[in-house]
Amino acid sequence: MKVVITGGTGFIGQRLARRIGELGALTGPSGEPETVEEIVLFDHHRPAAPIEAPGLRVVQGDIAQREQVSQLIDRDDVSVFHLASVVSGAGEQDFDLALRVNLKGGRNLLEACRARQGAPRLVFASSIAVFGGSAMPAAVGDTTKQTPQTTYGTTKAILELLINDYSRKGFLDGRSARLPTIIIRPGRPNAAASSFASGLFREPLNGIDVTLPVAPETAMPVLGYRAAVENLIKLHELPGEALGDDCAVGLPSLPVTVADMLAALPRAAGPRRLGTITIEPDPFIERICAGWPRRTEDGRARALGLTSESDLEQIVSDYIEDYLAEAEED
Amino acid sequence: MKVVITGGTGFIGQRLARRIGELGALTGPSGEPETVEEIVLFDHHRPAAPIEAPGLRVVQGDIAQREQVSQLIDRDDVSVFHLASVVSGAGEQDFDLALRVNLKGGRNLLEACRARQGAPRLVFASSIAVFGGSAMPAAVGDTTKQTPQTTYGTTKAILELLINDYSRKGFLDGRSARLPTIIIRPGRPNAAASSFASGLFREPLNGIDVTLPVAPETAMPVLGYRAAVENLIKLHELPGEALGDDCAVGLPSLPVTVADMLAALPRAAGPRRLGTITIEPDPFIERICAGWPRRTEDGRARALGLTSESDLEQIVSDYIEDYLAEAEED
Repeated sequence: MKVVITGGTGFIGQRLARRIGELGALTGPSGEPETVEEIVLFDHHRPAAPIEAPGLRVVQGDIAQREQVSQLIDRDDVSVFHLASVVSGAGEQDFDLALRVNLKGGRNLLEACRARQGAPRLVFASSIAVFGGSAMPAAVGDTTKQTPQTTYGTTKAILELLINDYSRKGFLDGRSARLPTIIIRPGRPNAAASSFASGLFREPLNGIDVTLPVAPETAMPVLGYRAAVENLIKLHELPGEALGDDCAVGLPSLPVTVADMLAALPRAAGPRRLGTITIEPDPFIERICAGWPRRTEDGRARALGLTSESDLEQIVSDYIEDYLAEAEED
Repeated sequence: MKVVITGGTGFIGQRLARRIGELGALTGPSGEPETVEEIVLFDHHRPAAPIEAPGLRVVQGDIAQREQVSQLIDRDDVSVFHLASVVSGAGEQDFDLALRVNLKGGRNLLEACRARQGAPRLVFASSIAVFGGSAMPAAVGDTTKQTPQTTYGTTKAILELLINDYSRKGFLDGRSARLPTIIIRPGRPNAAASSFASGLFREPLNGIDVTLPVAPETAMPVLGYRAAVENLIKLHELPGEALGDDCAVGLPSLPVTVADMLAALPRAAGPRRLGTITIEPDPFIERICAGWPRRTEDGRARALGLTSESDLEQIVSDYIEDYLAEAEED
């Protein structure tokens, strides 16, 4: 079978591709395990470093171009992981781009799946940004009203609705995974308001000083990238019936505060010499964080077999193993 | 100012136009009352009977044609009531048509408003069909998760989301009204599963026998057409700030059963000779009705000044006054 990962050259996309490559097989549209013959990373961006692996291919393109997307979904034994998205900050700056990529691009993908025989499986990376507004409870879950306060969150909520309806009609076999803040992203800080949640660990672990724009009591639900990738694959493997009439599931998460993160870092880092952390609250970032849910209700996700790391220390240890241990061995 | 009513040649659209004509003025984009100079009923359908009134015009067209819609919204002092929609049953039969009219058409309208100066007011007729599914509570309201089980309901939920976001961005000044089953529709039965809720009253009042496809204990929230029209206008007149960060409001409704309706009819009809009512449950219709919410939480709507009729008898009396009294005087 073929696996298409949109937004595939990003951090999560590349890890997902590697993990699927290790597994070697996924459940195909027949419901039986099928050998993964090719993995295509479809992305607007050219990868920073060349990505090479047997059966893996990068296709650069524009998801808003219907023809390009239907050429991508060119066989019936196909599965799609849809990660491509204009992100939160960029969506606030360019409304039309967010609707073009997230909404039109998303529909192109759903239509391309619908055009195949046998209702291909599609896993969509949604986001807890679908939640927001003055009526939002502190804990959000699969039965919480979605009142997003960003164009990004709006397009994610719309695609959850469309994927539910395309699945109900039997056009495809969809499932949406609502991602909390995923940590610890390697590389450099980005423009996301949540960037500090990775930087808080990453920079000190790399011996770099970091300034935190939020107070220690700032709360948010987080998940490690390893569990995020495993959950996307587990969701893919579940039979559609397990999801009932709402195939959008909030992933499990750890409800933590910045203070919890600050405490976990030295515990997990061991004898490493860490960069120093200075707290300088930035009212702009703090106002955005105040609009986030504090935690997620993840009972349904856990009952479906989805998981989180056990604690923050495990997430930090995983990052050290994946991104620092090798470098230190050199 | 100009008022555009999409789907305007329908039952509610025509009553709304007449009521706005009587009022003579609405709040314009300036926030001040402005004289209504022209009312345009935009519709795909040609009206069954000619509609004539000073300042009133029917424009036949296709809402999915972007150019036609932008020509319609051709001045800045404009308000829009967006009623046009492929309805529930038709949407299940033709998915592509539902998305074309409800989603593409809706976006065309939002973009046409965005292109004007001063963020025109737009009132969208949404529906309680946004609710459904196994996790739906018996009473649905403004904080209930929307998990529609029809393509119609899906497109209504999506447009609520888009109108919230266009409003948040200041592109227009939107408000969505979630309509329950509106009774008593004049004319002939239609293909809607809820058609019996009007026919139950209308046929007997017109001396026609009627067969009901549902059991007396069948429950649903209803609203009279007079209150529906008044509420659409009241929502238009409210300042946007009154709606906060979720400008979609479930209209007030009466939670009734078919037994309640059967009891109200003779009480309100007085000495009229009524057609007989036979109950012959239709499993297909009953299954659809079982998926409807039993009632709505309408506290927010009532706090905003929106209203329902006092009881079913009032709705029946209004229908007699509006559609039977005149005929009987002849």
